[in-house]
Amino acid sequence: MSGRYTLFTINISRLREDFFDLSQIGKVGESGVNRPAFSIAHLEARSWFRKRIEQAGLEFRQDEAGNTSGFLRCGPPGAPTLLLGSHLDSVPTGGRFDGALGVLAGLEALRRIHEESLTLPFHLEVIDFSDEEGSLVNFFGSFALVGLLEPEHLENPRGGRDKLSEGLQRAGLNPEAVLDARRDPASLAGYLELHIEQGSQLITAGMKVGVVSSITGLSFYRLIFLGRADHAGTAPVQTRKDAGVGASYFNVSLRELIVERYPDCVANVGIANFEPGAFNIVPEKAVLSLEFRSAELSRFQSLKSEVLKLAEDAAARFGLRLVVEFLGEKEPLVMNQKMQGVVEKAAEVLGLPAAEIVSRAGHDAQAMAAFCPTGMIFVPSEGGISHSPNEFTQWEDCVNGANVMLNSVLLLAENS
Amino acid sequence: MSGRYTLFTINISRLREDFFDLSQIGKVGESGVNRPAFSIAHLEARSWFRKRIEQAGLEFRQDEAGNTSGFLRCGPPGAPTLLLGSHLDSVPTGGRFDGALGVLAGLEALRRIHEESLTLPFHLEVIDFSDEEGSLVNFFGSFALVGLLEPEHLENPRGGRDKLSEGLQRAGLNPEAVLDARRDPASLAGYLELHIEQGSQLITAGMKVGVVSSITGLSFYRLIFLGRADHAGTAPVQTRKDAGVGASYFNVSLRELIVERYPDCVANVGIANFEPGAFNIVPEKAVLSLEFRSAELSRFQSLKSEVLKLAEDAAARFGLRLVVEFLGEKEPLVMNQKMQGVVEKAAEVLGLPAAEIVSRAGHDAQAMAAFCPTGMIFVPSEGGISHSPNEFTQWEDCVNGANVMLNSVLLLAENS
Repeated sequence: MSGRYTLFTINISRLREDFFDLSQIGKVGESGVNRPAFSIAHLEARSWFRKRIEQAGLEFRQDEAGNTSGFLRCGPPGAPTLLLGSHLDSVPTGGRFDGALGVLAGLEALRRIHEESLTLPFHLEVIDFSDEEGSLVNFFGSFALVGLLEPEHLENPRGGRDKLSEGLQRAGLNPEAVLDARRDPASLAGYLELHIEQGSQLITAGMKVGVVSSITGLSFYRLIFLGRADHAGTAPVQTRKDAGVGASYFNVSLRELIVERYPDCVANVGIANFEPGAFNIVPEKAVLSLEFRSAELSRFQSLKSEVLKLAEDAAARFGLRLVVEFLGEKEPLVMNQKMQGVVEKAAEVLGLPAAEIVSRAGHDAQAMAAFCPTGMIFVPSEGGISHSPNEFTQWEDCVNGANVMLNSVLLLAENS
Repeated sequence: MSGRYTLFTINISRLREDFFDLSQIGKVGESGVNRPAFSIAHLEARSWFRKRIEQAGLEFRQDEAGNTSGFLRCGPPGAPTLLLGSHLDSVPTGGRFDGALGVLAGLEALRRIHEESLTLPFHLEVIDFSDEEGSLVNFFGSFALVGLLEPEHLENPRGGRDKLSEGLQRAGLNPEAVLDARRDPASLAGYLELHIEQGSQLITAGMKVGVVSSITGLSFYRLIFLGRADHAGTAPVQTRKDAGVGASYFNVSLRELIVERYPDCVANVGIANFEPGAFNIVPEKAVLSLEFRSAELSRFQSLKSEVLKLAEDAAARFGLRLVVEFLGEKEPLVMNQKMQGVVEKAAEVLGLPAAEIVSRAGHDAQAMAAFCPTGMIFVPSEGGISHSPNEFTQWEDCVNGANVMLNSVLLLAENS
C-alpha cells in the first residue's frame, strides 16, 4: 500500500475480548442472545458500549432517537464525519454476530486510528443504531437520523404503541423529541457498515469478503382478516366466515406465488393471531404480519401489487373483509461507487478474495444510502443461518471483516 | 295434567330480574358477557348466585371442583337427588344466554317447588358447573363430578398450566383436592339441563322446544408444527422449513375435508400462534388448537383418523415435525329415553311444538349421560348464533324453556 497511511491491522485479542464480553449480555442458551430494542438486556449492552468508548478515550454521544456513538475528533476543524457502525439490538432469541460485529469492528477501527494518532480528512464516529431489527419501529434509529421517521411510525408502530412507549421510557427517551435526531447530510462524509452476510452466497462462491452492491427493498404490512365469530360446534363449516381460514389460505398462496413466479424474491408471515382465540369459537379476526423483499425496483413493485391482490382474493374467497395496514417500506438501493471501490481495494490489499454481492437482508445502510455515500462489507455466515442462536461466523472471518473496515477508512482518507 | 302434581308455571318477572341482573356481571358492550372460568367476573357471578340461593331458602353447596349449587331437601330421607343446571362461565366475549339460562331456570324451578312445599320422590339441586366452556380444562366441573377428570388434564390443561393454577387460586380451590369432587352415581336421580340451541334447527323447523336425543362427540387437540427459524430476507423460500406455512396448509385442508367429505361434521382451529413471532423471522414453531365434532360414533372415529392424517401430511409436505397433544374427547352420547319422554310430555302439556334434536354443541349433559339418567331441553337461538355477543333468544322462548324444565321435574316425580 503506497499512500500516506500505512496498512494497519486491528488488535485481534482486544476485539475478541469485546466480542465475548458482549455475547454474555442477554445470553440465551449456549450461543444465542435476546436483546430486542430497549429491553433491559439491550440497554445493558449499551451501557457496556459506553464504558468501552470512554475507556478508549473517545467521546460518548447519544441522540434523541437513542442512537449511541463514540466520536473521535481526528479531522481538521469543520470536517465532516465518517460514520462506522451497525446495531447492538437483536431479534428475539437471535445470534451473537448480527449487528454486534459491525459495532465492535467500528469501535476497534477508531481505537486503532486513535492509538496511531492519525489525522484524517474527516472525523470518525462509531454508531449503534436503535432498533435496527424493528421490534418496535423498523430502522427507528437510522430513519430518525436521516429524517425518514414520520410521526405516523410512532403512532402505529409494528411492535404496538404500548410496547413503544414502555421502551422509550425504559431508555429514558422523550417521545416528543425523537424526530430531532435528524442530522444535516453535509455533516457526514459517509457511512460504512460491516455485517455478517446472513445468506450463503459468499461460502458458495468461496469468497471471504462481500462488497455490497445493492440492498434488497422491503415492505412491511399488517393484514387483518375480518369474519364472524360463531360457535364451532353448531355453525356449519360451509357457511362460516372463518377469518383464520382466510388468513391461512393467504399464507399458503403467498408461498406458492414466491416459489412459482418470484423465486428471486422472498416473503414472510412471521406473526399470526386469531381472535377471540378460543378452541370453540370460529375466529372473527386473524392478524398477520407480512414482509416481502426484492433487490430490483421493478420486481419489487410488481411483487407488491400481486401480494396485496392475493390477500384481497383470499379474503373474498371466504366472505371476509380485509384491512391492510402499511407499516413501512424501503425501496431497493445501490451502494455508493466510491465506497464499493475502497472496500474492494482494502480486501485486495489484505489478500482476501472478494466479490460483489446483493444484500437480501435490510440494513441501516439502506436508510443511510440516500443520505450520504454509503458502503457495506459482508463476511460469510455458516449455512447462511441468522436470526437464530445457530447463526455463526468463523472468528477468522470476523477479524478479516474488521481489518477490511479499518483499511477501507484509511483508503477513503487517502482518496478524499 | 292428571297427576299428583298440578301444572305449575314459573314466576316470570323473578326470572326476568335474575336474567338481567346476571347479564350485568362481566358485561361487554351492549349484549355480551366475558366470564371465562375463574375470572374475576365469573367469581362475581358465582357470588351473586350464592346470594340468590340463600335468599330463596335453599342450602348453598360448593364441591372440590368449584361446582356451586343450591340444594332443596324435598324428598324422603335417603332419596337420591335430581340435578338441574348448566354453567355461569362464558367463552371470552360470549353471549348472555349460553349456560346462564339453564342455571337460572333450574334455580327458578327449585324456588317454585319450595314455595309450593311439594314433596317429591327425590331431592333437588340446581348446579352451576365449573368451566363448561373449557377456558382452562374442558368440562372441568362435570368431569370431576362423574370421575372422568384425570390428573393429566390438570398437568397439561388446554388453557395452560399457569392460567389453571392462577384460576384455582383465585377461586380458593385446592388443586390436590379437585378429584375428590367425584360423586356416587347412586346418589343421583338424574340430570336435566335447559340450554339455548346454538344452532338454527328449531327455528328452521318452526319448533319452540327441542328434545335432545343425542349430543355430538368432540375431540380436542393441540397441534405443534416444528420447523426452523431463519432470516426472512436471506433464506430462500424454497428451502425454508416454515412452521407457519405448514400450520396454515393444515387449516385450509381441514376446511376442505369437512366441506367435501364430512358435511355432517364440524372442525375448528380457533387459536394460532407462531414463534418466535417476529416480522423478519421465519416461524420455527406454529401451535394450533383443534377441535372436531360428529354426532355419530363411526363418523366420529373415521373423521378423527383423517384429521390427524391431514396434519401429518401438512407437516411432511413442508419438512416439519408434528407433535400432537391430545387434550380430551367425548364420544357422541344418546340421552336417556325416560328423560326424553318427560321433556316431550312437558312441552305437550304446555302446548309448545317440540321436536327431537341432535345437539351439535358439547354440554355438561354429555359428561353426565354415562353416569345417570340425563336429559336436555333446547330453546331456539336467533340466527343460530352463539359464542358471540350477538347470541339471542326471544324472552318468550326463555320462559317456555324454564316452564318445560319445571314441568319435566314434576312429570318425572309423577313417573318415579
